[in-house]
Amino acid sequence: MEPKENGSELGQIIDGPTNPMVTPLLNDLYQFTMAYAYWKAGKHNERSVFDLYFRKNPFGGEYTVFAGLEECIKFLANFKLSDEEIDFVRDCLPGSEEAFCDYLRGLDCSDVEVYAIPEGSVVFPKVPLMRVEGPVGVVQLLETPFLNLVNFASLVATNAARHRFVAGKSKSLLEFGARRAQGPDGAISASKYCYLGGFDATSNVAAGKLFGIPLRGTHSHAYVSSFMSTDEIVDKVLRSADGKTTCEDFVSHVQTWLKKIQYSPSLSGIFSETNQSELAAFTSYALAFPKTFLALVDTYDVMKSGIPNFCAVALALNDFGYKALGIRLDSGDLAYLSREARNFFCTVERELKVPGFGKMVVTASNDLNEETIDALNKQGHEVDAFGIGTYLVTCYSQAALGCVFKLVEINNQPRIKLSEDVTKVSIPCKKRSYRLYGKEGYPLVDIMTGENEPPPKVGERLLCRHPFNESKRAYVVPQRVEELLKCYWRGSADEAREELPPLKEIRERCIKQLENMRPDHMRRLNPTPYKVWFSPTNMFFGFLS
Amino acid sequence: MEPKENGSELGQIIDGPTNPMVTPLLNDLYQFTMAYAYWKAGKHNERSVFDLYFRKNPFGGEYTVFAGLEECIKFLANFKLSDEEIDFVRDCLPGSEEAFCDYLRGLDCSDVEVYAIPEGSVVFPKVPLMRVEGPVGVVQLLETPFLNLVNFASLVATNAARHRFVAGKSKSLLEFGARRAQGPDGAISASKYCYLGGFDATSNVAAGKLFGIPLRGTHSHAYVSSFMSTDEIVDKVLRSADGKTTCEDFVSHVQTWLKKIQYSPSLSGIFSETNQSELAAFTSYALAFPKTFLALVDTYDVMKSGIPNFCAVALALNDFGYKALGIRLDSGDLAYLSREARNFFCTVERELKVPGFGKMVVTASNDLNEETIDALNKQGHEVDAFGIGTYLVTCYSQAALGCVFKLVEINNQPRIKLSEDVTKVSIPCKKRSYRLYGKEGYPLVDIMTGENEPPPKVGERLLCRHPFNESKRAYVVPQRVEELLKCYWRGSADEAREELPPLKEIRERCIKQLENMRPDHMRRLNPTPYKVWFSPTNMFFGFLS
Repeated sequence: MEPKENGSELGQIIDGPTNPMVTPLLNDLYQFTMAYAYWKAGKHNERSVFDLYFRKNPFGGEYTVFAGLEECIKFLANFKLSDEEIDFVRDCLPGSEEAFCDYLRGLDCSDVEVYAIPEGSVVFPKVPLMRVEGPVGVVQLLETPFLNLVNFASLVATNAARHRFVAGKSKSLLEFGARRAQGPDGAISASKYCYLGGFDATSNVAAGKLFGIPLRGTHSHAYVSSFMSTDEIVDKVLRSADGKTTCEDFVSHVQTWLKKIQYSPSLSGIFSETNQSELAAFTSYALAFPKTFLALVDTYDVMKSGIPNFCAVALALNDFGYKALGIRLDSGDLAYLSREARNFFCTVERELKVPGFGKMVVTASNDLNEETIDALNKQGHEVDAFGIGTYLVTCYSQAALGCVFKLVEINNQPRIKLSEDVTKVSIPCKKRSYRLYGKEGYPLVDIMTGENEPPPKVGERLLCRHPFNESKRAYVVPQRVEELLKCYWRGSADEAREELPPLKEIRERCIKQLENMRPDHMRRLNPTPYKVWFSPTNMFFGFLS
Repeated sequence: MEPKENGSELGQIIDGPTNPMVTPLLNDLYQFTMAYAYWKAGKHNERSVFDLYFRKNPFGGEYTVFAGLEECIKFLANFKLSDEEIDFVRDCLPGSEEAFCDYLRGLDCSDVEVYAIPEGSVVFPKVPLMRVEGPVGVVQLLETPFLNLVNFASLVATNAARHRFVAGKSKSLLEFGARRAQGPDGAISASKYCYLGGFDATSNVAAGKLFGIPLRGTHSHAYVSSFMSTDEIVDKVLRSADGKTTCEDFVSHVQTWLKKIQYSPSLSGIFSETNQSELAAFTSYALAFPKTFLALVDTYDVMKSGIPNFCAVALALNDFGYKALGIRLDSGDLAYLSREARNFFCTVERELKVPGFGKMVVTASNDLNEETIDALNKQGHEVDAFGIGTYLVTCYSQAALGCVFKLVEINNQPRIKLSEDVTKVSIPCKKRSYRLYGKEGYPLVDIMTGENEPPPKVGERLLCRHPFNESKRAYVVPQRVEELLKCYWRGSADEAREELPPLKEIRERCIKQLENMRPDHMRRLNPTPYKVWFSPTNMFFGFLS
């Protein structure tokens, strides 16, 4: 038996992509027409090198979070066209020769190598996120799926990181976007990559199951309005948290508390009659989830009904050893309402002597985004957790990242894509790239060098130059040098390569890298661009000048 | 054997959703917490009515294309939680009773009814696109998946329709968005719904295979730059279209034509040396696809290299009975370049006496959207086909549609969601809706009535009123009355219901409906809002005033 087969028998298996629709047919037709033309010209096995990179950071910022790598490797490791798919492709290429089908049938990624920056890294324009090498026929067939898998993943992870930045480290960030996302895996992958980018939890059950992301959710307005009155509640019994006592009529107990709140000195006059349908819904919900009671308080009137009703139920639960979690606000002036709610809770704590009641969690939702959270911060608010949907998961303020996949070398010959727009000129040659760190520990510059140039050395002065402006040069003395591209695929799952870490580790890398950036690169307004330069000796300049 | 089982044995089967990730877990957690709370309160089987609708047309327009219904019905018809899914849900609901799992295990949509406007219809704010009736426990579990399946589908179909409107009926519209879409089925569903909204073809092979959408694609810049010179072309033989003759050296034949063009009186001086790598790529591509030769002409210089090289290859093909299709422009001033290219083709036709050469198809791509196509129209262009990607498939100018799913009735009791924002107040009661047509055949107004009100009658004067402004009233004498909601699901695939038509028919309905709208509703700038009113006698007003 051949060593390789042996290896793969004993060896590792990389699962397929999360979405079973990710097959080699998730591709632009022209990748197949080109594959045929390469094959017909006998060029299909020419060794090519492609760089996957983007040209501009999204959202007006100066950084991007790289995500989607794991899905690319899963796709690549399982790349195989089925007979049915091959038949379909043949029918799409009228006049193609039958022998091309044999070529497609034998096609896999055993001659492909993928070098990539680790997923969850903070990355910058023009630096290759992935370098894909291999026979041009098959590598072209990776272009569309790789771009598809990286573009949205990186975009939404970056969006999540930006929301985290504005909300601050101490807040809980919950992704609530499933209903407004761009299709089913727009939702599922948004949940995954928002978590990667620093969110704490999602409402999306499928994403929770697939990726182990913590789940959050309570009830909607419909639940509240589905109740008419507390008379509907048939089973009024609540067993205490310690199981020792039983409240036979929890409904009356709640009503007693409602009256106590109403007539307590500092709260008297704030509200009169609360909405009974809402009170019934809260009471019923508390009977179902006494340990995790969290109520949506804005179906009728937050301060005149929702908050007093919530407090009555929470105080009633408290008598039986249960701590309510808090409230959610989904409309109105969130800054004002969160402060009023906090005051109310603190007054209850003080007046009714319930320690900790003032610390009730206030969750806010309702079309939140970077701008609205920033505005809330400026107004002053008492929100502990933000539930963010539409703007986060659809990347509403910029719905696409423009990653491209450019041929930079074929048969050891550098290739370049020219353009009248200098920012669209591709950077030829197989390259390496390094992140150089300064004394304070911040990254200073990413530099690209030719494949065979000596790497930058710690403590040695290095002249770097701007890619498209010869007059811009600078000396850097790196305190730490990190090579960015690591090997993630070398023909099979068994060859030496970087492991695909679990999502949690990717998330930790992301959070750590974001925290380690110099603050002026990260700020929302007029951030400083991070430098992406070249080593001055390298070979690109012959092509660029 | 029970009649129902019998029925389903003999009966119809509705396939599951296109994306196998669409399961009951593609849901917000709160739908399950509510399901538990309803069940715990014994309310889970209360008959509820929910309306699915949106509040505002997207893209600053005054119309929307409804799409996504088929996927909703496919989901619903196959709604079933697996044991593994039930275990996961139980673990998400700490403290839940084991009997709830039995309830989930038995859950299906055999008590659910769905009334909907046919997919592909032109629709307007506030009018229910779908009315879903059934036990509140299960209907709540449809909310998130239905919204997810309808929101993006309708948004992107509308975006496609708007692109068609600005491009005009005579142009070919090609969807090229797979690489920039929001994830894998962001791509696949964009392809589907852009076709529905009036596009002609897609580049997305998977979508072509799944939905029978015509496919388009040729080659990329990488293909062009992968060639060094025509010396690389080993197999230079071209068999003529009729199979009767053979060109032994097609490469030389192309080069002969290139010289002829260069020295023809009217073209002389336009270009000198063309790029040889490009010429090699075109020649090689033509050898692979002599019947469907279409070249990307902007890798180096459109007028000095791309167009002359293309013409040389096209003329050489012509000698052997093949008609080249045309060119694609992917950068630069598309209006100017398309006109210059057209001039060049017409000059070739005239000077070199090649009938029809001037009619070569010019395809344009490169970040096109409604605005850029409108600008091209104003400048004057010679583009025949537009390839549109990023802006189309991500709905860049508005990345989300805000469909909502609101409880309007439970146990025959009307329910309303109040809000300080009057446009967010839900319209209570189970309702019917009608589209009334005027003399010219245009739709005049959509009106909503109570479930049991008599329908509007052709030729009878009807007083309609504005939903939120009592003073706005108008008389309409409909020439045609169309009831909008039709039954698509009544508990099983075998019950009487509307068929799910093939995509092509849905597309035809859409195109026909768009063409039948009064033009002032459709224009890009300051379109007239279409009227959505109430019958004056109906019962909503008691709730609203």
